Amino acid sequence: MYIGIDLGGTNIAAGIVDENGNIICKGSVPTLRERGNDAIVADMANLAIKLVKEAGLEISDIKSVGIGCPGTIDNDNGVVVFSNNIVMEKYPLVAKFREHLDLPVNIENDANAAAYGEYIFTARDKKSFVLITLGTGVGGGIIIDGKLWRGFNCAGAELGHSTIIMNGKPCTCGKKGCFEAYASVTGLIDQTREAMEKDPDTLMHKLAAENGKINGRTSFDAARAGDKTAIEVRDQYIRYVAEGVGNIINMLQPEVFVIGGGISREGDTLLEPLKEIVYATDYNRFMPKTEIRIAKLFGDAGIVGAALAAKK
Amino acid sequence: MYIGIDLGGTNIAAGIVDENGNIICKGSVPTLRERGNDAIVADMANLAIKLVKEAGLEISDIKSVGIGCPGTIDNDNGVVVFSNNIVMEKYPLVAKFREHLDLPVNIENDANAAAYGEYIFTARDKKSFVLITLGTGVGGGIIIDGKLWRGFNCAGAELGHSTIIMNGKPCTCGKKGCFEAYASVTGLIDQTREAMEKDPDTLMHKLAAENGKINGRTSFDAARAGDKTAIEVRDQYIRYVAEGVGNIINMLQPEVFVIGGGISREGDTLLEPLKEIVYATDYNRFMPKTEIRIAKLFGDAGIVGAALAAKK
Repeated sequence: MYIGIDLGGTNIAAGIVDENGNIICKGSVPTLRERGNDAIVADMANLAIKLVKEAGLEISDIKSVGIGCPGTIDNDNGVVVFSNNIVMEKYPLVAKFREHLDLPVNIENDANAAAYGEYIFTARDKKSFVLITLGTGVGGGIIIDGKLWRGFNCAGAELGHSTIIMNGKPCTCGKKGCFEAYASVTGLIDQTREAMEKDPDTLMHKLAAENGKINGRTSFDAARAGDKTAIEVRDQYIRYVAEGVGNIINMLQPEVFVIGGGISREGDTLLEPLKEIVYATDYNRFMPKTEIRIAKLFGDAGIVGAALAAKK
Repeated sequence: MYIGIDLGGTNIAAGIVDENGNIICKGSVPTLRERGNDAIVADMANLAIKLVKEAGLEISDIKSVGIGCPGTIDNDNGVVVFSNNIVMEKYPLVAKFREHLDLPVNIENDANAAAYGEYIFTARDKKSFVLITLGTGVGGGIIIDGKLWRGFNCAGAELGHSTIIMNGKPCTCGKKGCFEAYASVTGLIDQTREAMEKDPDTLMHKLAAENGKINGRTSFDAARAGDKTAIEVRDQYIRYVAEGVGNIINMLQPEVFVIGGGISREGDTLLEPLKEIVYATDYNRFMPKTEIRIAKLFGDAGIVGAALAAKK
């Protein structure tokens, strides 16, 4: 058995995971970032110990612990080099965790962990695989020859930070025109707001008011109801996503390309037009095409991936 | 000993290559595309046989033959699936070649072969490596974990066909705004011409007239002489190249990133400002940086790479 922990900005989610990636039991506690990292780590370990008990297991039944964490991770040394989200800098996460629970621990960038989880659970018979998550930002993970490719310095697979429009919209990373600036939920909300400002009659005003704010579903929901402006926003958003997906495919031609994150819950509404654009503009016109699909694991991919990446 | 053959649109270049990637002897003959593929293949084999004799060797001294060829290559089956440049479609190049010279033969996309040659010759102690060639188009090759990554379908590493400006300049591939459309020699010539049309006084008119036409050196040469418009063209061109290079680095974080092809002969004039831009905008701010440098093998990388890729 393995423990997988997904350390997020809002919640710490953890689970006991078996050899095959099945979650035996899981739980979560709030991250409460402001209290500092040592307290967070103590809670991570306490949650893990509690879950071991709940599963009717002993600590000795656990072979290793995997932690998925946002930011730049030095896997070899067990250090969070930098995380903007959790506010860690050169933080020795593995050593700190082992003060509470002395098991082998592996940390992994959270997007890499999610990609690895989805890969092992849904595509382990393939040799190459890419996952992107369309969430607050756009993250990703790359599997080549069955292994996570993290870059030589563990700073790779920043799939949201390739430019699709040079000198375009400012990105949180400091560059302009990154894929993330257009394809993230944040990007979609900006696009929705801009369209609403120009069209006082769009249904999106009503939906946003009902919801208390504009969110990633506003344009998709209004488009489903036939609202013309919303359809334009949604279709343009899908074109942005397709542009970035196509770029990655032309570079890597992975056997499977998976789209995860909040917006992927739109399913075929997102997937079908996206596939049409990507396949029509793919440089590869003569060889088999990359399979493009929606993620299957959703929120649990981080737990499973962290656990399984620690298994190796 | 190995034979490496670089099949280009203009010339067939070949060489006898030793275990370590040294060329023992080399030669070339014109491709003469219009005469058809079977005649080209016969000439490739004849050139190879001639070089074996010139090197004072017997055919039995040759372990295998590697052929680098533009286009989509089915390595497993020895077939050129499609080559726009040489005009081959589902052409069984390996079988055809072996009618003339019955040795083990491997074919490789020419950019992959060049990347592999440069890798083995100059960076084989590294595990990850990317080469792009700034030539008529923009090609490339990716080495991950010491092996060429061709994509699951052998159609990957099309590093010139990621969009840097969505809906930008039309590319030969049918998409708009590809890296190749801006960073190739063809792109640079277009940028040079456009600047010349707007500035009748730029030195570039004189240089182009002396040379008989605008080429990839026109702006760089005039910029060296202090011409303001040429400096703008050159600097903007370098920004385009940097944008594409940065995109690939954010995705893959290879240990070494090499720039080859005709324009790479500009050396530090290209490299130094490019490194400055890429390092300033790289998403990775905390881990070691990718080494970016100019190719060392130049024209022979194709021969050496094809030979060494066939060695494995």
